[in-house]
Amino acid sequence: MKKVLVMGAGQLARMMALAGAPLNLQVLAYDVNTDSVVHPVTQQQFPMTLTEAVADADVVTSEFEHIPYPVQQVCQASGKFFPNSTAIKAGGDRRQEKQLLDAAGVANAGYRIVSTEAEFQSAIAALGLPLVLKSALAGYDGKGQWRLKQAEDAAAIWADIKSFMAGADHALPQAIVAEQFIRFDREVSLVGARNAKGETVVYPLTENHHVNGVLAVSLALPGQQQLQQQAKQMFDAIAAKLDYVGVLALEFFQVGDQLLVNEIAPRVHNSGHWTQQGADTCQFENHLRAVCGLPLGSTALVRPTVMVNILGEDFVDPAVLALPSCHLHWYGKGKRAGRKMGHINISGSTVAELAARFVALCQHLPEPGFPEVAEVAAKLARSAS
Amino acid sequence: MKKVLVMGAGQLARMMALAGAPLNLQVLAYDVNTDSVVHPVTQQQFPMTLTEAVADADVVTSEFEHIPYPVQQVCQASGKFFPNSTAIKAGGDRRQEKQLLDAAGVANAGYRIVSTEAEFQSAIAALGLPLVLKSALAGYDGKGQWRLKQAEDAAAIWADIKSFMAGADHALPQAIVAEQFIRFDREVSLVGARNAKGETVVYPLTENHHVNGVLAVSLALPGQQQLQQQAKQMFDAIAAKLDYVGVLALEFFQVGDQLLVNEIAPRVHNSGHWTQQGADTCQFENHLRAVCGLPLGSTALVRPTVMVNILGEDFVDPAVLALPSCHLHWYGKGKRAGRKMGHINISGSTVAELAARFVALCQHLPEPGFPEVAEVAAKLARSAS
Repeated sequence: MKKVLVMGAGQLARMMALAGAPLNLQVLAYDVNTDSVVHPVTQQQFPMTLTEAVADADVVTSEFEHIPYPVQQVCQASGKFFPNSTAIKAGGDRRQEKQLLDAAGVANAGYRIVSTEAEFQSAIAALGLPLVLKSALAGYDGKGQWRLKQAEDAAAIWADIKSFMAGADHALPQAIVAEQFIRFDREVSLVGARNAKGETVVYPLTENHHVNGVLAVSLALPGQQQLQQQAKQMFDAIAAKLDYVGVLALEFFQVGDQLLVNEIAPRVHNSGHWTQQGADTCQFENHLRAVCGLPLGSTALVRPTVMVNILGEDFVDPAVLALPSCHLHWYGKGKRAGRKMGHINISGSTVAELAARFVALCQHLPEPGFPEVAEVAAKLARSAS
Repeated sequence: MKKVLVMGAGQLARMMALAGAPLNLQVLAYDVNTDSVVHPVTQQQFPMTLTEAVADADVVTSEFEHIPYPVQQVCQASGKFFPNSTAIKAGGDRRQEKQLLDAAGVANAGYRIVSTEAEFQSAIAALGLPLVLKSALAGYDGKGQWRLKQAEDAAAIWADIKSFMAGADHALPQAIVAEQFIRFDREVSLVGARNAKGETVVYPLTENHHVNGVLAVSLALPGQQQLQQQAKQMFDAIAAKLDYVGVLALEFFQVGDQLLVNEIAPRVHNSGHWTQQGADTCQFENHLRAVCGLPLGSTALVRPTVMVNILGEDFVDPAVLALPSCHLHWYGKGKRAGRKMGHINISGSTVAELAARFVALCQHLPEPGFPEVAEVAAKLARSAS
């Protein structure tokens, strides 16, 4: 049995543990908030320090990119940290992320790094409006982001940004990445894995729908050949640049037939949860295979599949389980507004069958808890008919 | 979160725990051999007596039919034991099993119950030769079974049976079920689930290949309409007779177009392990859904799938993971000759694709550890071409 230690003890570590058990992999998790080692499914406590846990593990990996740098140092020094600290940092700091995208030669929105009001003004002048302003550090799920639409709002937004930067509880110097606003047609993502030999596999491109900056629905459908190739090339370029080992997710803006990388996530990704029911090998298993030196598994789409996030709700009508191919995945977390509590995967043998089932599923998902989900289902049903 | 306590702490409880976590079900296991409560994946110990563990659980169930009667009594008295003790006993005692099959009106081999030499002789006279002699209690995986082919061997076999019965360490009176030997064409099984409302769902009929009385390979292939209906009728009759709740497996002899029930297993079953990759809802999840009062999940065949048991081996060439749709399931157990250590599931989108993959898989499964598996693969390849 191999021992894998995950930085972070949330749902991603939990799903890794569930995917790892059949491979005889024991997955433990280091909770950076409480400085404790736990089993991410049972919450059993293991009385070990970080250093001891890293020493005890065969492989160290991560479920999130906002790992404190001193913790990353311990992991990286062990020589068994996959993906490596450079990759984790690129995911956790938008400055490094943007520099990586440029270095890998992949298309992304024009940007400037902004620390002062003068830089803010020159970013506006250089990039034009509207602008998207994103905190370089600690911003995710829609937090630490601003949109500047017209010049007269600049002063107010700068004031807001300044207070955000001042309040930021982070050891590193904070800054803002000012980005050209992309009028995208769709948001899509590519989840894939790279092993230590440099081999890569990617899942089919996934269409994502965000509500208030948080992923609500992902659709994994067959047949987007040209886009898939484009995304795969970018994946390979970025992963090679990072000498990446593990699962890596790329989020894109699609503008016409072109993809621009919006951001990267150096880990298994919410938009890859559909792979648990829809793909030949799920992303959690493929991540473990990659970091443990096992052969990568097939990423083929077995069935068109939709994933619906359960946000801030700890109850879903059990009747959804009576729908064919409908699977609930709870994370065992306490209820909190907006919190990712679980997800639902639903599949069909054809897109039309999937659409019909997705529409039926929406009958059980009341609007306040699942905003915009029914519209996505209705749109899929229209496009499939 | 609901708590499910399983009688037995082996691989079936383990796979229930893995299937239960996404449904927010905590699965603990009572090990009848060590009188202890453990987590069946992590082996974490819970300092509880059986009575305390049963009181603490929302639902009590079982992974095997040879639960000591006093333990069954504690479970049954709780009012939350599914399937019930009558069903468990019918699975654990061939006398009760045969009476059940007769009472349910399902076809099975002619038999006599034998406790004395006189009964043995009259069974031979009534049923003819060859005869299969099976210990009523504690016989499984080919143990406690004899075959009487010719009258002159009767005395020697009776002597052997007598010493087996005398040595049996069981509180209940031991006996032998003498059965007509069935010249079957195939062995098949049906795994299904029944809920407390009496609704039933069944998986596609599975073809099984045993080596020395132990399951080696199961094949789940589409399209055996007439046999499937016949098996489903028998399943419904037996499950109704037992007021069964949970997953139930029936093993059949197929003679021409007719099925005879060979035995029943009141639990998730080795011949249903293919459902983890090949069916819409796996048998472990459906068992938990049934016993927890959740809707039963679709049992549709998603992809033709083969399951290969790993017996007495703790190593399989990791190269098998590079084959598309090939999944390893280890049980985390110590190596012992003949022991069920894990299984491999392999799927294809068609039977022909599955057959080709199965043949490729066999290149990695050396003959001593996997006897007869390559022949099954070759036969499938021939029938699919």
